[in-house]
Amino acid sequence: MINSETIKQILEHYRVVWALGHAGSVMGWDSETYMPEEGIKGRAVARAEIAQLIQRFMLDEKFVKLIEKAEEERDLTDVERGIIRVLKRDLRFYQRVPPEVVRELAKVTSEAFVAWRGAKEKARFDLFVPYLERIVELTRVVAEKLGYEEHPYDALLDLYEEGLTSRDVEAVFSVLEPGVKSLLYKLESRGWPRRHPLEDVPYDKAKVEAAVMEVLEFVGYPKARFRVDVSPHPFTVGIATPFDVRITVRYRGVDFREPLFSALHEYGHALYELNIDESLAMTPVGSGVSLGIHESQSRFMENVVGRSREFAAKISPNLRKHLDFLAKYADDDLFYYFNVVRPSLIRTEADEVTYNLHILLRYRLERLMVTGEVKISQLPELWNNEMDRLLGVRPRNDAEGVLQDIHWAHGSIGYFPTYTLGNVVAAMIYYKHGKIRELVAKGNLASVKEYLREKIHRWGSVYPPKELLSRGFGEAYNAEYLVKYLDEKYR
Amino acid sequence: MINSETIKQILEHYRVVWALGHAGSVMGWDSETYMPEEGIKGRAVARAEIAQLIQRFMLDEKFVKLIEKAEEERDLTDVERGIIRVLKRDLRFYQRVPPEVVRELAKVTSEAFVAWRGAKEKARFDLFVPYLERIVELTRVVAEKLGYEEHPYDALLDLYEEGLTSRDVEAVFSVLEPGVKSLLYKLESRGWPRRHPLEDVPYDKAKVEAAVMEVLEFVGYPKARFRVDVSPHPFTVGIATPFDVRITVRYRGVDFREPLFSALHEYGHALYELNIDESLAMTPVGSGVSLGIHESQSRFMENVVGRSREFAAKISPNLRKHLDFLAKYADDDLFYYFNVVRPSLIRTEADEVTYNLHILLRYRLERLMVTGEVKISQLPELWNNEMDRLLGVRPRNDAEGVLQDIHWAHGSIGYFPTYTLGNVVAAMIYYKHGKIRELVAKGNLASVKEYLREKIHRWGSVYPPKELLSRGFGEAYNAEYLVKYLDEKYR
Repeated sequence: MINSETIKQILEHYRVVWALGHAGSVMGWDSETYMPEEGIKGRAVARAEIAQLIQRFMLDEKFVKLIEKAEEERDLTDVERGIIRVLKRDLRFYQRVPPEVVRELAKVTSEAFVAWRGAKEKARFDLFVPYLERIVELTRVVAEKLGYEEHPYDALLDLYEEGLTSRDVEAVFSVLEPGVKSLLYKLESRGWPRRHPLEDVPYDKAKVEAAVMEVLEFVGYPKARFRVDVSPHPFTVGIATPFDVRITVRYRGVDFREPLFSALHEYGHALYELNIDESLAMTPVGSGVSLGIHESQSRFMENVVGRSREFAAKISPNLRKHLDFLAKYADDDLFYYFNVVRPSLIRTEADEVTYNLHILLRYRLERLMVTGEVKISQLPELWNNEMDRLLGVRPRNDAEGVLQDIHWAHGSIGYFPTYTLGNVVAAMIYYKHGKIRELVAKGNLASVKEYLREKIHRWGSVYPPKELLSRGFGEAYNAEYLVKYLDEKYR
Repeated sequence: MINSETIKQILEHYRVVWALGHAGSVMGWDSETYMPEEGIKGRAVARAEIAQLIQRFMLDEKFVKLIEKAEEERDLTDVERGIIRVLKRDLRFYQRVPPEVVRELAKVTSEAFVAWRGAKEKARFDLFVPYLERIVELTRVVAEKLGYEEHPYDALLDLYEEGLTSRDVEAVFSVLEPGVKSLLYKLESRGWPRRHPLEDVPYDKAKVEAAVMEVLEFVGYPKARFRVDVSPHPFTVGIATPFDVRITVRYRGVDFREPLFSALHEYGHALYELNIDESLAMTPVGSGVSLGIHESQSRFMENVVGRSREFAAKISPNLRKHLDFLAKYADDDLFYYFNVVRPSLIRTEADEVTYNLHILLRYRLERLMVTGEVKISQLPELWNNEMDRLLGVRPRNDAEGVLQDIHWAHGSIGYFPTYTLGNVVAAMIYYKHGKIRELVAKGNLASVKEYLREKIHRWGSVYPPKELLSRGFGEAYNAEYLVKYLDEKYR
């Protein structure tokens, strides 16, 4: 797939960048799983050095010239064009955003993380305000340096989802907000469900772990390329995509939905990386193309497949084998337990129906923050009012309100919308295929996975997100499918 | 401890070398413990790239000039002199040995490893001959390029043990060979012991693991800086000395001495790294100074402490708690089981008494190989004759003879003598302290460890091996102590 001599030279040079990225991934995985506590003292220094090296090799003059040269070549293959596109995106950031801004952001966010943790523990947003103010200020500089056509927020959206604009997000929410609200109105009229008894059943961690591993075996993974560990916050990492992809799960000891569905979620991410064409390995297009597309894969496995009635019935024997307390529940009880809908305060615990309203709230606040239309100190009140308006619930304190997510402390502003894009695309795939639940009912997960592989996974980052979706499905972020999916499932 | 501005600049530049080394260590550890099988496809590329980067940064012209400049400065502290000494040693290798020789060696040894594994499985040395011939040829080039005063083998010894010469090794064996032989003659006259029944008792891996962890807790380790995992070949790695040091153990399921003493062995290595002064962290003198000194620490814990009658009595309750099959054995039975002496064919399974004769054999053959006085194809016969002469046993095939060790396939020629140095120094420490076994009997491991910390550990690589020993004990590699130790224990 690589014909151009220039591109061959680019890949030659890129190998060291890939190697450093690989080292960073291994270190990141290790930090969250097995590293002894004090190991951080060396690890932090090493990761900072490695990050600087990557930047240095990316900005190497010879390398930049090769990319510019390749850009002017004719008859490039899709893969070759993808390589140039992705490298230019990375370069653009390094070239446009001054290194001192990047360093300052790194410094502030590492302090902000500690401040945020403390502020959340004490439920006191005021302790976090000066840090968030500085982060927003610097983020605004980043947006200005990167440039945008209509709104500074667009520059940030594009960082997380190539080509995404506020217009796209508005289009999505203009369909999603009324659709979901109408559904919630209907559900509320029937009365919100009581707590399902299984939500409070404590479990034996080893038993749930055994059950989760059996479920993962049922959906199927390549043993020689995949592993599952335990960490405080579940994640997926392509250590060396597609040869070594790992996920983590957390077992808290109560409400076994959490590890089950977070494992399926991460498995969806992992499957994307595992199915990328081997010929793209170690190249700039050798991993998933964007956060939104990645999230579509995790949400598809977690929700469209995992929370379907058919899947519940299919994995019920695996669960029952290990979890004695399920004896008094029918398979349909399991299905209801997996799909309790109820307005709640915490995004990460939200159900499929209410989830995107949590994102809508964050999206609106982020836009106001970035333009300076709202003072940071006003955020809690705005947050609480908006929660009330969107979901009819009101946080009792900042810990369960504006302080709940880590993203802003990390400096990730413009990231949240990709979660909703994931849900939108997952529903789109469901209808475009048309027979997902039939296949699940037959236990034919292989066909489902093959469809995803062909439409999404194998291409890595060869095509930008919207083009990838248009090629596979004839359209990009159409939220009608998600409204339809939720209506059919819950109304 | 760092006053010189030049040295400060050197350390500044060195940080990236340290970071890359750290990345290499994490990758190495991961490869042996948790990496999924196919991960090697990316890992091999990444490790090669990282190794090349380290070489590139070490040879950076500005860096080399700084080192040369620092060398001429006056009033340097010991730490500063140590930093220059260690960096110059590393540089010397890169500067004198042509990169194409290093690359060729890397290529040949990676093929040789596969060939050796196959040859060993089939017990056919002839399949390995062409690879070993090429390795010896290239190693001879390395020795010539590095330079030496008396014998090319000295250049190789120095690679593994700074400052070590054939004269040192001859001096050690001139004491050790007659001493050990005389002891063996005495022991043989009493008749070699039968197989101890415990040598063949199968065990439950989880139970032995629990017992081993209790023994490690008894000797004491810092939980926030240390961890134990499982791997096919036990090893120790200073991931970020002294903040993150890890060991591995293997559980084969029969003869529980093996995991117990290999854990104590690796623990001895780990303790060295854990006790290095924090101020040396991330500098060129921030890890153990040499293989021989390192091995002295592992052998001290494994043999001097671990195989003592006092230690057996002390850990007996921990072992009995988990291993029911010990009920019919007294503590003294345990002690004898831990110290069975019997001439045998395999170095890694040899007891304290016969072990160094296995090394003597390898040392003699290596010298002949390096000078070309012996053809590679003649090695099996020489090996078998020498085994017969030294230990009175004769391999039935090459797998249990000349093919048993991986070292030559790795290109490690000149490495073996450091094992004997370790034993020699461990015994020396035992007598210099004088009350080790009394402290063990009292369970006062803290005092033992503090002595090692003060005499050896804390200094990292600040002093070269012989100077470190002279400072601590008034002499270096005196084998009389080892002969005395073996005599007192076994005669």
